[in-house]
Order: sequence, then C-alpha cells, then structure tokens
Amino acid sequence: MTSESTFISLMRAMAPDPAARNLLDDCAVISLGSETVILTHDMMAEGVHWLPNADPADVAWKLVASNLSDLAAKGANPLGVLLGFMLGDDKWDRAFAAGLETALTHFGVALLGGDTVANRGDKRALGLTAIGTATCIPVPSRGGALPGDLVYVTGTLGDALAGFELIEAGFDEVGPLAKAYNRPEPRLAEGRLLAPLVNAMMDVSDGLLLDTERLASASKVEIAIDLARIPLSPTYVSYRGDALESRLQAGSWGDDYQLLFTVAPHTEVTAAATQVGYVREGAGLSLFDGETRLALPSSLGYQHH
Amino acid sequence: MTSESTFISLMRAMAPDPAARNLLDDCAVISLGSETVILTHDMMAEGVHWLPNADPADVAWKLVASNLSDLAAKGANPLGVLLGFMLGDDKWDRAFAAGLETALTHFGVALLGGDTVANRGDKRALGLTAIGTATCIPVPSRGGALPGDLVYVTGTLGDALAGFELIEAGFDEVGPLAKAYNRPEPRLAEGRLLAPLVNAMMDVSDGLLLDTERLASASKVEIAIDLARIPLSPTYVSYRGDALESRLQAGSWGDDYQLLFTVAPHTEVTAAATQVGYVREGAGLSLFDGETRLALPSSLGYQHH
Repeated sequence: MTSESTFISLMRAMAPDPAARNLLDDCAVISLGSETVILTHDMMAEGVHWLPNADPADVAWKLVASNLSDLAAKGANPLGVLLGFMLGDDKWDRAFAAGLETALTHFGVALLGGDTVANRGDKRALGLTAIGTATCIPVPSRGGALPGDLVYVTGTLGDALAGFELIEAGFDEVGPLAKAYNRPEPRLAEGRLLAPLVNAMMDVSDGLLLDTERLASASKVEIAIDLARIPLSPTYVSYRGDALESRLQAGSWGDDYQLLFTVAPHTEVTAAATQVGYVREGAGLSLFDGETRLALPSSLGYQHH
Repeated sequence: MTSESTFISLMRAMAPDPAARNLLDDCAVISLGSETVILTHDMMAEGVHWLPNADPADVAWKLVASNLSDLAAKGANPLGVLLGFMLGDDKWDRAFAAGLETALTHFGVALLGGDTVANRGDKRALGLTAIGTATCIPVPSRGGALPGDLVYVTGTLGDALAGFELIEAGFDEVGPLAKAYNRPEPRLAEGRLLAPLVNAMMDVSDGLLLDTERLASASKVEIAIDLARIPLSPTYVSYRGDALESRLQAGSWGDDYQLLFTVAPHTEVTAAATQVGYVREGAGLSLFDGETRLALPSSLGYQHH
C-alpha cells in the first residue's frame, strides 16, 4: 500500500494555494472578505479507527471530536459539519445517528449537509468536514515555533490509552479513562484562549512525541521533550503508575486530542497547560528524562501506514 | 441496509440550521460577514460509483466534477477542495493523484487539504468537499419553482449513458460519449449566468426525471416533462436513435451533470438550455410525449439503495 507520507507528498506538490498551508496544518485557512474560514476534513475507517464491536454512538462522537480538535488548534469557532456516510445495517445507522445528534448538541455545532453512499458489504468508511471561523489573526500554524520558545500541552496524556486497554480487556469500563477514549473533548475554549499567545499550535491526535516531531519539522527547529514533565491524570497513574515506561507510552499514544503549543518565554499562559519542553535551533525531536537524554523509541506514535 | 431516504430523514431532524437548507439542496449556504460560502461534500465508492477496472484518473475527475456540479447549481465560484482518500496500491494511488491534478488544473480549483486513511483490503471509499462563494443572492435552491414557470435543462442528456454502454461493451471508446461519462463538465459558467434568473435550480446527477421529481417535491408543485423535448446530441441519436424509449432512457440516467432550472415565463435565458416542461399547481412529476400523457416508469433514475 502507498504510505501516507508518499501520498501526501504527491498532494502537496499540487497544493500551492497559501490557504492549503502546504498541507502541513490539518486545516485550510481561507480569507473571505471580512472573515477567515477554517476548514478541515477527517476520515475514519472500520478496523482502523474503530473496532467492529464499538458503540456506533462513540464512533459518531469521535468523528465529530477529531475534526473539532483540528479547529481548536486554530483557535476557531466551529460553525457546522458535513457528513459523508456509508449506509449499513439499520440498527448501526440509527445508533450512529443518535450519537451524532448527541455530539452535535454537546458541542453546539450544526449539521449542514453531506452525502450517503451504498455499502456493498465492505467495512465502513466515514468522513466529516468541519467549518469554523478564525477568532485570531494570524491563525496559528505548526510552523511558527522559534528557538527559545517553551513547549506546553493542555490537560493530561495517556488517559485514552488506558481507557482503550480497559475496554479491550473486556472491563466494559464506563469510568473516566474509557470516556477519555470513547468521548474525547476537543479543546475548543483553550484553543481560542491560546491562539493570540502562541507561536505554533497543533492538536495531539497521533501521540505527543510524533506530533511534536511534526511541529518541529514544520517550524524547522529542534524540540526537546522532558518525559518527567508529561502530565498524567491521577486515574492514569493509579492504573499504570508514573514510571518512565508509563510516561513514554502516555507520550506515544494517539487519541488524546489535547493541544500542543509553543510560546515565547515569560508568556502568561491563560489555559490549563503543562510545560513539557522547549525549542532550540536544530532539527527534530529530542527526548529527555529530567537531565538524562534518551534514545528515541522506534515508534513515536500512531502512523497510518 | 438502511435506505438513503431513511437515513437522510434521521439527519434532517437534527439539521434545523437555515444554512443546512433542510438537507434538500446538495449544498450548505452559509452567510459569513460580507460573503456567502457554499459548501458541499460528495462520496464515491468502488463498485457503486465506479467499476474496479476504471481508470483512476477518471475516478478523480468525476469526484471533482460531481462536487463542482453541486456548486454550479448554486451559481457559485469554486475556490477549492478537501480530499478524503483511502490508501491502496501504489500504482492506483499515483494514477489517481495525477488525474486529480489534471482535474483541479482544468477547473482552476485549489487543493486545500484533506485526510488519508489506511485500507485493510476493502473496496475504496473516497470523499471530496468543495467550497465556493455565492455570486448571486439569494442563492438558488430546489424549492423555489412556481406554478407557471418554464422548466429548462442545459446541454444534452443521455451521452453519459451511451458512453457507459460503449465502455462496458469493451469498445474502450475515447470519443465524445465515453468522455461524457468519464470526464463530465460541470456547468459552472452556466450556473453563474443562470443564478440571477431562476426560481429554482439543481444539477442533474441522478437522472432528469428523478431529479425533476425531487425539485417538484422541494417546491411543492407539479412539473410536467415532455419527453419529445429532451435534448439529445447528434452523437447520441446516431448511436441510440431518438425514439421514445431512447428519450426515456436519456431522461432516467444519471451522470449527466447538466443544470435543471425553472424560470418565470418570458425570461430571457442567457445560457444554452432547452425547455423540457413547465410547472403547475399539484405535486410530483408528470410525463408527456408531446400531448400524450405517459405512465411514470417504475424507476425514474439512479437511487442509492
């Protein structure tokens, strides 16, 4: 199969419009008269992004949440979504529809349109487009981190990983960890608070380390992450401890939907966030446990091969 | 499987925002400051919208063209697209990418973003979101046809049907009929010319008769179509003749991507179009061959079951 990076390279070569932001930024940023439109499209596929036994209402929630998380990283106000839906069995489709309504109501986002296609017995693929408007110009990108910046992440990491493990182990957990996996909360309010302050911002959908490497690459800087600083929830710690291995896993797992951002030193950060590293001249990701430099693990996060 | 109409009914119940136009209109119409954004999303699935032996470049073209056709029916200026792509084998993906570039260049539309997902050996599903801006307020809808209006369609109908038959029969035809099927031209220029003139407009993607019935239903009127008036190309006539059966098929086949619209009597229609019927009080579609009323065929066009 074509690798994701190969295909994106092909696409990038045909996307010179500045609104495409060189396809590095999760969202298109389109200036239209007095407004700036933020537009994003994410797909989810059965067997890749969800297991066949997943609750269709959770699938609907994550489809909405993952797109809104891209808008959050732009400091955008979400307006609405368009759904691309592959029809399947009636019970699944109705449960999905009910879950979609729950999610849209929760996030205060309108269903604006979409399309349905027949299904010839294949695994499902779903798409969602989200549109929002910028609240802050310039709209944050992945590419603005500067040497000397401090690196922060909102909330805690690893809860979705722990929730996934509990669900997989058959605990049918309905506690905070399973909720972190099934019903992530994109950081929309935090994104709007942070957008005027940051030099660079993106959401952490594929793991802190992998996404940090992407932000460093887009900004042409090196980012040092200190695993000792990775924010863990008390529930996560009670389940998996806070040893180095546990912190490393919390930093290499996707589905957290927190915001990763860099700010100039001495910036007053007005959203709940933890400093996890800093930016310096160089390239790529470097990893520390306090003062001790660590080798990079073979996998930094979730890659869509 | 859930029927398309059942699922859309579920969606409609949760789409009260006026920008959604009650999900009757193929596009969302969003007022943003000084601009009006037109947004549409269409999916295509292997085995439903294209056969496994189709040229990937043609699939890319049709994905772009079908979305731009929705914008054409709104009189919109297209700005760009976001692609939802399911990765597959390298040769297919590269041919698709090359075809996408050809289509985007041809239509002068930017690639703005999108998403890729892995493929676990399933048939492919692709999605495209197109964004444009309105050139005319109010933006045409399906719902504005008035009793007394005349009903027109741009271009000719049935060419895509004939092209599909030639391709299926193994003629590997590269002439105008195959081109009509593989490389349809959305009526963007015509849509902008017509938008200020029409009472109702939509694109003919699923067949003239089916789409006319939909327009009649959205407008709460009856529309009479005269099969004797259906515009056929000389190439189509030389291949399939112009007898009633041939006209009926030309009116019941999708993929034409012409514009169907209604105007008040005595309107000067400034785009190349043929009057095929008229609007009167009542409900639904009625069918004539000249003065002779015909029974409706069991299938009016392409339905996504």
